[in-house]
Amino acid sequence: MPELRKDPFVPNRWVVFSPERKQRPVEYTVVTQNNHREIFDAFSWGKEKLTPHEVFAFRPKDSPSDSPGWLVRVVPNKYPALRIEGDLQAEGIGMFDRMNGIGAHEVIIENPDPTVELADQTVEGISLVLKAYRERILDLQQDIRFRYILIFKNKGRMAGATIIHPHSQLIALPIVPREVKEKIEQAKRHFEMKERSLFADVLHEELSAGKRIVLENSFFAAFCPWASRFPFESWIMPKFSSLDFSSLDDNQIMLLSDILQNLLKRLKKGLENPDYNLVLQTAPLRSSRREYMTAVEVDYRWHIEILPRISFLAGFELGSEFFINPVYPEEAADFLRQIRKI
Amino acid sequence: MPELRKDPFVPNRWVVFSPERKQRPVEYTVVTQNNHREIFDAFSWGKEKLTPHEVFAFRPKDSPSDSPGWLVRVVPNKYPALRIEGDLQAEGIGMFDRMNGIGAHEVIIENPDPTVELADQTVEGISLVLKAYRERILDLQQDIRFRYILIFKNKGRMAGATIIHPHSQLIALPIVPREVKEKIEQAKRHFEMKERSLFADVLHEELSAGKRIVLENSFFAAFCPWASRFPFESWIMPKFSSLDFSSLDDNQIMLLSDILQNLLKRLKKGLENPDYNLVLQTAPLRSSRREYMTAVEVDYRWHIEILPRISFLAGFELGSEFFINPVYPEEAADFLRQIRKI
Repeated sequence: MPELRKDPFVPNRWVVFSPERKQRPVEYTVVTQNNHREIFDAFSWGKEKLTPHEVFAFRPKDSPSDSPGWLVRVVPNKYPALRIEGDLQAEGIGMFDRMNGIGAHEVIIENPDPTVELADQTVEGISLVLKAYRERILDLQQDIRFRYILIFKNKGRMAGATIIHPHSQLIALPIVPREVKEKIEQAKRHFEMKERSLFADVLHEELSAGKRIVLENSFFAAFCPWASRFPFESWIMPKFSSLDFSSLDDNQIMLLSDILQNLLKRLKKGLENPDYNLVLQTAPLRSSRREYMTAVEVDYRWHIEILPRISFLAGFELGSEFFINPVYPEEAADFLRQIRKI
Repeated sequence: MPELRKDPFVPNRWVVFSPERKQRPVEYTVVTQNNHREIFDAFSWGKEKLTPHEVFAFRPKDSPSDSPGWLVRVVPNKYPALRIEGDLQAEGIGMFDRMNGIGAHEVIIENPDPTVELADQTVEGISLVLKAYRERILDLQQDIRFRYILIFKNKGRMAGATIIHPHSQLIALPIVPREVKEKIEQAKRHFEMKERSLFADVLHEELSAGKRIVLENSFFAAFCPWASRFPFESWIMPKFSSLDFSSLDDNQIMLLSDILQNLLKRLKKGLENPDYNLVLQTAPLRSSRREYMTAVEVDYRWHIEILPRISFLAGFELGSEFFINPVYPEEAADFLRQIRKI
């Protein structure tokens, strides 16, 4: 059974112990470098029986669950870091704190073709992936044991991917992640000092300065943030007040798909198909929101972070929680802006 | 010129921008897998002119600086992340915060032989490396621009190493690292609640429970911590009150070398020579200590963290600042304890 343990020294940091992932076979594989498809890919059409039963899919009307023909398919992770069954139990062990590992761990299969990366999809294709994110958040947030839903994507080995078939992951957690909690606390302090939203202020600053902006449309801006941890780190943030990713309507999702596709294509072309992590940091779920914020006091805003993984995190980063980055975001944004014929 | 930028969203997180490291040639190299030594290794005897002038060395009496014959040699990093020259200047850029990149970045060459890893050294050899750490801290802490000195080691490519010749690195910073700052704040909160030291309490808990202890001697304990982020993560902590690594005397350093050698040998044998980061988190320098602690109120304690890098950090870790770890520390410690014939 997985377990969550709280770090006694670093506030708000928890570790998920999931012993069942230890002997995980790399059973789903393998498109080799030259696009030759090998036999075993559990995420393509006709292999639906090799995964747990789907919890959501965009598929032709009247086609049965777990049959081919789908465009996006969401299944529970076969080797979940957290378990969906059971009641949440928190307890102290001596001076330490633990919680049983209740949560959800799902895989969003982005399309049936293992060779089509997210950056290669049409805007409509990407919008289906984002809509699948939205649907899963809307469904899982009804479970009052969960306080947060993190959606992320590992593309390439340097980014931690073990399966090549393009997919995203979702983890529902009984605790709000450290980074999200600290961003909310920072936004609160900002509001106390200035009576303004931190997220709105930063975005306004970025849009005025302009030099870290990669592209924008009516609803969204993509920029390389002021204190980018990674070379070519790029965020997408809504220009309007929006706590919750799941509150986006279909029109907003279309414009988000458009800017995300454009940004991913620029990264792919400019950096020669880099490994990257994509992270969606939405607000904590309603069940726990009262303890972190009220809509009036702090305008947290969901955002997507794309973190190219070109170099390794080393002792400096792990020992300080600072980062060394050889590329200024102004330079990165300028480079990404100037890419033509994406 | 390097620059430090403060993250507007995550409190206490800074990023070091060092554009000069971008075109860094991988000029120091290369011992191939089969221990065949290639020509170019700027860190061995006779190649002293290829590095900047040494700032410290253990070498035969009367042998001149930058000549062969040394046992441990410390030189400025040829491609430093931070620059030693200039005054510290902090300023606001719009709503953002920056500081010029003042600091020191040094390389501690652990021995003249590129094939002898830290785990392979004698206890005396390791004690010279630790004494070199101590000497460099004692020297650099006189510079009032610095608030912290982080010493770390990247062993192997997964741990971020680009040079194979065994070496550690030292970075002196004008800001206390986020992780250290948060550990001190946590220790303060603990003291306010309990009038006891957090570090002493955790170590006492570990020694009483026993199951996460790997080994110990009169002065030090090595254990896999309660909320280990990485499989087989192992810390060494003094059993006595000790803020500052640089306050250790020669006897204490000998016993520390002994336990460090033993632990590194177990990791090397048990995990088949894994890549790892080693991090020494000492206390902030005296110049800034008053603002973080008084000796009475909080007993921060320096410690060494060894972080095996067997898997990649992925989107979950980067998006949540939580970790997923398939190996419980009780299991890791038990495995490491049982290794024979190290």
